[in-house]
This record gives sequence, C-alpha cells and structure tokens, in this order.
Amino acid sequence: MTLYKLKRKVKLQDVDAAGILFFPKFLEYCHDTYFEYLDVAGLNIPQSIATGPYILPLVHAEADFKHPLKFGDEIEIRVLRAVMGKSTSFKIEYEVVLAGNEETLCCRANTVHAAIHRKTFKPLKQLPQEIKDVLKI
Amino acid sequence: MTLYKLKRKVKLQDVDAAGILFFPKFLEYCHDTYFEYLDVAGLNIPQSIATGPYILPLVHAEADFKHPLKFGDEIEIRVLRAVMGKSTSFKIEYEVVLAGNEETLCCRANTVHAAIHRKTFKPLKQLPQEIKDVLKI
Amino acid sequence: MTLYKLKRKVKLQDVDAAGILFFPKFLEYCHDTYFEYLDVAGLNIPQSIATGPYILPLVHAEADFKHPLKFGDEIEIRVLRAVMGKSTSFKIEYEVVLAGNEETLCCRANTVHAAIHRKTFKPLKQLPQEIKDVLKI
Amino acid sequence: MTLYKLKRKVKLQDVDAAGILFFPKFLEYCHDTYFEYLDVAGLNIPQSIATGPYILPLVHAEADFKHPLKFGDEIEIRVLRAVMGKSTSFKIEYEVVLAGNEETLCCRANTVHAAIHRKTFKPLKQLPQEIKDVLKI
Repeated sequence: MTLYKLKRKVKLQDVDAAGILFFPKFLEYCHDTYFEYLDVAGLNIPQSIATGPYILPLVHAEADFKHPLKFGDEIEIRVLRAVMGKSTSFKIEYEVVLAGNEETLCCRANTVHAAIHRKTFKPLKQLPQEIKDVLKI
Repeated sequence: MTLYKLKRKVKLQDVDAAGILFFPKFLEYCHDTYFEYLDVAGLNIPQSIATGPYILPLVHAEADFKHPLKFGDEIEIRVLRAVMGKSTSFKIEYEVVLAGNEETLCCRANTVHAAIHRKTFKPLKQLPQEIKDVLKI
Repeated sequence: MTLYKLKRKVKLQDVDAAGILFFPKFLEYCHDTYFEYLDVAGLNIPQSIATGPYILPLVHAEADFKHPLKFGDEIEIRVLRAVMGKSTSFKIEYEVVLAGNEETLCCRANTVHAAIHRKTFKPLKQLPQEIKDVLKI
Repeated sequence: MTLYKLKRKVKLQDVDAAGILFFPKFLEYCHDTYFEYLDVAGLNIPQSIATGPYILPLVHAEADFKHPLKFGDEIEIRVLRAVMGKSTSFKIEYEVVLAGNEETLCCRANTVHAAIHRKTFKPLKQLPQEIKDVLKI
C-alpha cells in the first residue's frame, strides 16, 4: 500500500567527513520523494507555491537512523502512507532501505504538515479534496 | 543554563522556492551549533572522527517548526542542554529564536546520539568522561 | 556527439531567495551528470575514491549563466565532450538547456581535472586507458 | 587593499566522500563572504532582492583549485577587489587561504555580475552609485 517509491544512489557530496550520509539529507531525500509523488500525481506544486490559495508547510519532522549510508549506496525511498492528524494537519510516513536488500532498513521518518491560506497563513477549515485524493486520506 | 549560543543570519541559498528556510536546514543549523560548541569546549572533532577510538552518530532527530524564517533573519541557535538516555546514548536539546526578539520561538529540536567504537560500530560500555564533562551530564 | 544527457527538474530547495537556481548548483548539476555518466559507463567511482590507485580532482571550474532557472523547470544537462589538456589533465564541457525547448541555453560550463596518485597526490605519468576510453579522448 | 575578509572553519558536511571540500562549496564560501561584506557595508540585500529597483545576478563564475581543504581546516576567505567590466557589469575577485599560514593559497575565484532591472530584467544604463561606493569602483 506504499504511495510511492524512488530509487536513488547516495551522492559524493551528500556524505560528510565521517563518510556517511549527513543526517538532514535523509529528511531531504524523503521530502524529494514526497514532492516527486505530488508531481507525478498531477499536482502543480511550483504554481501552487507561487500563486495557489493554500500551502502545506511542515510543522514537525522526525527520523530514526538505523543504518548508515555511504557514497554510491543504492537506496529505495518510500512514501508509505499519509495519516490525518488534528484538524487539517496530516502526517506522511517514510522509510529508506538499501535497494536490492530490503531487509536493511536505513531510516524511518515522518513529516507533519498543516494546511494554511497562502497569504494570511490562517488554517484552512478543511483539507482540500485534491490533497485528500492524492494522499489517499 | 544554556550550554551554547550562536547568532547567525539566514542565508540567501538556505531558503526555498516558498521563500522560507528549507526545513532540514533547521536541523543543520542546530548541528552546526552543537559542533561549534564541542570545538570551543576543546574537543578535536576532526581528529576524533578520523582516528579517535569512538564516534557519536545520530540515532534520532526531530524538530517542531513554530515560525518560518526568511533570508536575512537574524537568529540565535541555542544548545539548551544534554540529557542521558538509555545506556550510552544522550539527547541534545535545541531551540532557535529570532535574535533581538526572544519571544519568537522558531524551532524546537533534539538529536539523540549513540556512543560506539569507531571501527567495530559496537556500543561503548560507558559514555567517555570527556563527553560527559563537555555536555555537563 | 554528446557523451551523456540527464533530465532533471529544479528542486524546491535548489533555488535561492531571489527564486532562481543558486549559481553553484549549476556546477553541482553538471558534476552529478558527469558522475552518473562514469557510473553508467561502468567505472566504480565509490570504490576508486576509497581504494583505487588514482583520483581525478578538479583544478578548475567555470560557468556562464545565460538564463535563470526556477523551481520545477525541467532541464537537460549534457556532458558534451572531454578534451585533453596539459600532460594528464582533461577538460569536460557541459551545457544545461530547458528541456523541450532546446533553443534556451541556460548554462555553459566546464571543469578541468588532473590525474594524480591517490596516496601521494603526485601527477600520473599518463592518463589511465580506462578513463580515456570512457571519455573518448 | 582587500575589501573584506572572513574566517571560517570547513564544516563536517561540506566535504565529500573523498574527504575534501566539494568544489562548488568554494564558490559558495566566496559568495557568502561577498554578501556578508555588502551587509556589513550597509546594503540591505534581503529588502533589495524582494522589492528593490534592480538586482545583480551572476553571469559568470570561475575558480582555480590549488589546495584541497579538509573538515576543520581554518580558512580566510577574501574579497580582494571589484573591477568594472563591459557596460554595467563588474567582476569580484576572491582568494581562499589556510588561516595562520597565508602561504597556502587554496582557491582563486571570481564572479561576474550584471546590473538589471528587477522586474523587466533589462540592463541598467549605469551601475548604481551605492554599489560603486561599496565596491570601490
């Protein structure tokens, strides 16, 4: 029931002086995959951010790091599911595994988003239907 | 009782297409401040990572985003305290506020670190005294 | 006679507070494409950097910026060709165009690399054949 | 006659899998120093980019890499001088040296900027006086 999967290799510049993926990059990889999913699902995020009626900023993010990644590691980043939160907020759950060896879980993460008016930053009364449809919530 | 404070301005390239600080940058800013503290406190982290007996990788990170930051915003990043966790793990707590206006909390975050042997990745039996001293735990 | 092409969309976090791709990202995109080409061509760069006999560090990079890129722009990054330089150095030439509209050149760039021993940093006497083969020089 | 100097330590996450500063970071460090100089000199760049009459985008950047940098290296980044170019363009020259050991030049770089109207992107007829004053050209 995974919403979306993306394969990717860890880049030279994404590891740090210890030779392992710098931890905020895990969250960046997850967010990239979420945005690619929204794009593939037909939402025009660039236009939405520039001129749309609402935005979906993060209010929380967290990650558990289970296995370090090195330059060249081939990984699969999964947007597992979305879950409704309080009022119009929702949570996206992710996992990152070594590709071709799915037993090695590298990271479990989630991000929580609020739905607010783009100009006033006030909360929407309900989550827009197009978002519910795409996120299957 | 804050361990360390760092003032910094949000950089041009750290904001995203929505004009606000890209969320993993909050964690990066916090980690930079933690590392600057270790450096100021006299630990030689570059040497430690390259040839030392142990390392302190992250096993968890999380952040609550309270107020968006824009290019040029002057912020203060605070390493509030360290707290012992299970066995040799410890948690570092952070907050990011708009400088000169401390009422505006922008982010509250924490990172959890494990103490492991650098070569074998096996857990240390106890947290090294030099770390306890610097982190005041 | 292009060596390699890569399509990519400009990411949310790669633009700056002016809403356009932060200029060092152009060089990063070009380098990513060069590395993907080496990988696709069968060179094991992660292994080579860790334990191989030689490395190919940059000694020069330059770029002309012709057209600004925005979040969501679909681009094609091209490794055009490699050209031998002085002794064992070589130059890689790149261009970045808006995909689907090849008339819009966005960036022209090149990077110059030297071939040196990995451990001693002394110049190689000649460029390794496997590199010549892959780069067609 | 150096315009501005900034001391900085190379960060954990700015080196790549080869253990050396990823090359676009040299240009990023130079640009950070240029922007810090403009800020210190009294120009309000965040406001200027958001609502000012003109902007100064890069049309060219180049760098020679002379000496690799590692995590923890203390460097001095220097904005050496500005030079007028064709019409309203100007070039900024930089160098990066190992701090405390000025004999070790690590990077020499320059960026070329054009002065254009922020909304129309048309070239200005002349470089604004406030820029000439700050850059001493």
